[in-house]
Amino acid sequence: MDQPWWRSLHVPCPVDETRGIEAIAAVKTGVASGAVKRPSDTRPDVAIIATDRPVSVAGLTTRSTAAAASCLWTRARVPGLCRAVVVNSGNANAATGRQGVDDNRAMAAAVAEVLQCEADEVLVCSTGVIGVPLPMERLLPGIAEAASRLAQSNGGSTVAEAIVTTDTCTKQAFAQRGAVSVGGVAKGSGMIHPGMATMLGFVATDASVSPEHLQELVTAATACSFNQVSVDGDMSTNDTVLLLATGQGAPLVPGSVGWDDLVVAVGAVCRSLARAIAADGEGARTLLTVSVRGGADAATARRLARAVVSSSLVKAAVHGCDPNWGRVVGALGQAGAVGLELLGLDIGDTAVMRDGAPVPFDEAPVSAAMGESELHIAIDLPGPGWGVAWGCDLSAEYVSINADYRT
Amino acid sequence: MDQPWWRSLHVPCPVDETRGIEAIAAVKTGVASGAVKRPSDTRPDVAIIATDRPVSVAGLTTRSTAAAASCLWTRARVPGLCRAVVVNSGNANAATGRQGVDDNRAMAAAVAEVLQCEADEVLVCSTGVIGVPLPMERLLPGIAEAASRLAQSNGGSTVAEAIVTTDTCTKQAFAQRGAVSVGGVAKGSGMIHPGMATMLGFVATDASVSPEHLQELVTAATACSFNQVSVDGDMSTNDTVLLLATGQGAPLVPGSVGWDDLVVAVGAVCRSLARAIAADGEGARTLLTVSVRGGADAATARRLARAVVSSSLVKAAVHGCDPNWGRVVGALGQAGAVGLELLGLDIGDTAVMRDGAPVPFDEAPVSAAMGESELHIAIDLPGPGWGVAWGCDLSAEYVSINADYRT
Repeated sequence: MDQPWWRSLHVPCPVDETRGIEAIAAVKTGVASGAVKRPSDTRPDVAIIATDRPVSVAGLTTRSTAAAASCLWTRARVPGLCRAVVVNSGNANAATGRQGVDDNRAMAAAVAEVLQCEADEVLVCSTGVIGVPLPMERLLPGIAEAASRLAQSNGGSTVAEAIVTTDTCTKQAFAQRGAVSVGGVAKGSGMIHPGMATMLGFVATDASVSPEHLQELVTAATACSFNQVSVDGDMSTNDTVLLLATGQGAPLVPGSVGWDDLVVAVGAVCRSLARAIAADGEGARTLLTVSVRGGADAATARRLARAVVSSSLVKAAVHGCDPNWGRVVGALGQAGAVGLELLGLDIGDTAVMRDGAPVPFDEAPVSAAMGESELHIAIDLPGPGWGVAWGCDLSAEYVSINADYRT
Repeated sequence: MDQPWWRSLHVPCPVDETRGIEAIAAVKTGVASGAVKRPSDTRPDVAIIATDRPVSVAGLTTRSTAAAASCLWTRARVPGLCRAVVVNSGNANAATGRQGVDDNRAMAAAVAEVLQCEADEVLVCSTGVIGVPLPMERLLPGIAEAASRLAQSNGGSTVAEAIVTTDTCTKQAFAQRGAVSVGGVAKGSGMIHPGMATMLGFVATDASVSPEHLQELVTAATACSFNQVSVDGDMSTNDTVLLLATGQGAPLVPGSVGWDDLVVAVGAVCRSLARAIAADGEGARTLLTVSVRGGADAATARRLARAVVSSSLVKAAVHGCDPNWGRVVGALGQAGAVGLELLGLDIGDTAVMRDGAPVPFDEAPVSAAMGESELHIAIDLPGPGWGVAWGCDLSAEYVSINADYRT
């Protein structure tokens, strides 16, 4: 049998999911616990990612108009140069008014003091509950403790551990291609929706890249990865993706030797992290990957793929192993898909629609495929676009987790 | 205590929820069972709404590009004149290709033959599973049977009973104001989302109105009612709202005596039906009403209200009686609300935010209010707009219902 079209959408690039941002030599990290969550909680909840000298940084923050103080701060400083990123989990510092803005600045200042740099060179990210002031009396000592561990490079707990909230596992990815290494970590399992997810992602490369070219790179990579994940349709107040380039010497630029390797490796790391977020969707059993071939352009195809992974009815059908493929068509129609009279639709390895009409099929293998840990849905429409999105089934556990998040 | 602002958003108009479209004298209805669902199923699943002469009809159908055959047919014939509407439940006749279009036409023709009119004077609505051809060998006899009962006006089962699918109750509403009567029925409890819900609504008035003015009326009423309901964020392939005006003589026009009564009565009936759909949301315990005062205009305010009732995280928090109000702010931010630095937010009778900052509050009454059968959330922002939306909590039962819809 020929390989299906959707298997060859991306340039292959192996990813090591056991290594993260610490695998980039010039990156130092330090974490501490008890700084935000209950003092008795031993899980790390504050992390610092630092470099010895200012490095290029670029990134994206939530499009929410209720963006947290950390997003407003960080957004104003990328693309640019930075010395560190400080992250806390357990509290979003969003909808906290003027106090939140002041607290955020104090976080940056505390790190700057240790690193002997300007507060403006420290980016800030927060994630957790909305509308509760930060416990600064514990957070500032926590930041000092994390900073004191920066010297012991890569020792002890990882950034990946410090940034999780309802995640059931840490998310790391590392890729090497040509002379370039790229390592990253991410968190997120609920409040996950394109544009972006409740999600933090920190990726670093040892390549040398100007802040402006790094911004182009992270924007393109995010569009095809973090922005293509939906767990529950809710966009966060705190979403942030940052990409650091620690390299020295002549920077890579588009067209130069090594640039394409960098693009492929960053893309592979970001996709791996995005996929891991979807697979860890709150209460999820099945990772859902939707590939679209067709649509006017890539952005259209990505939007259609997102619409399918975002549909509560599709997600519930997958959870129930119910081959009710009409809901995929419903989701495409809601998203304004054009050319549905030519729609081709495959669920797992089974063709269920061709040329816009149902194809008789045996339901048993489709139902079985829906119960696996991974399910693929392939959508074929007229047009040159293509795109992929990741999501998960909707389970009763999702409801339980979110019905009582704070206790 | 002063009455809160959100209690006086609509002109008061009492609604009788025990009477429906049959309360309009010139409307005849007939229903039959076993036409679509299993032959042994005694629940009615086909209905005809008919008049003795052509009457004005106006309406709206889904914006989905995967619109069912019935929506394409009906959309092309409103506003206009009609003799009848034929409705089936249990099968959406969507994503059924050319066969679906032919079957839909045959449904209209079967009714036209009995009424001795043109097929073009018969509108069609279908609701149910997507992607399965209609069982015409049973549906056509079912239509004939329903038609034979039109003579026994208002006898036996009601249209409200014939159109339900996963609904747990029928939805009817009747209002009288001045010389005008308005009666309606609706169905819908899942796949419910603005623009419009998986929802059928049939409303009739004994007023005389031209098709064009009727269209203005139904468009405006739907914008403030059926389009403001969200159960699960999924738009249907089959949504249809129709408004019939059976009156004779000089038509009411905007500004004429009685027009305002008609507007208020149609609005009240549509809102009552919309609210009933939200309250019957699949697996729902709590009807969620969100009122917004503020935003650039009414459409903006309605959009923000919809965003809050559509948020999975808000819905799950309500289900869990968790006063995690930050999720409301998150939903407003995702929807692009402007002026959040001045946000006022009340949950039930408790103020939780004023002027964009958290207000200390006792969580117990908020948690208790979330567990009631109805919860109100009031949002106050800068700007002259106002709007209301209805939704429900997200429960584990929603997942169960939709994980195995077809069995």
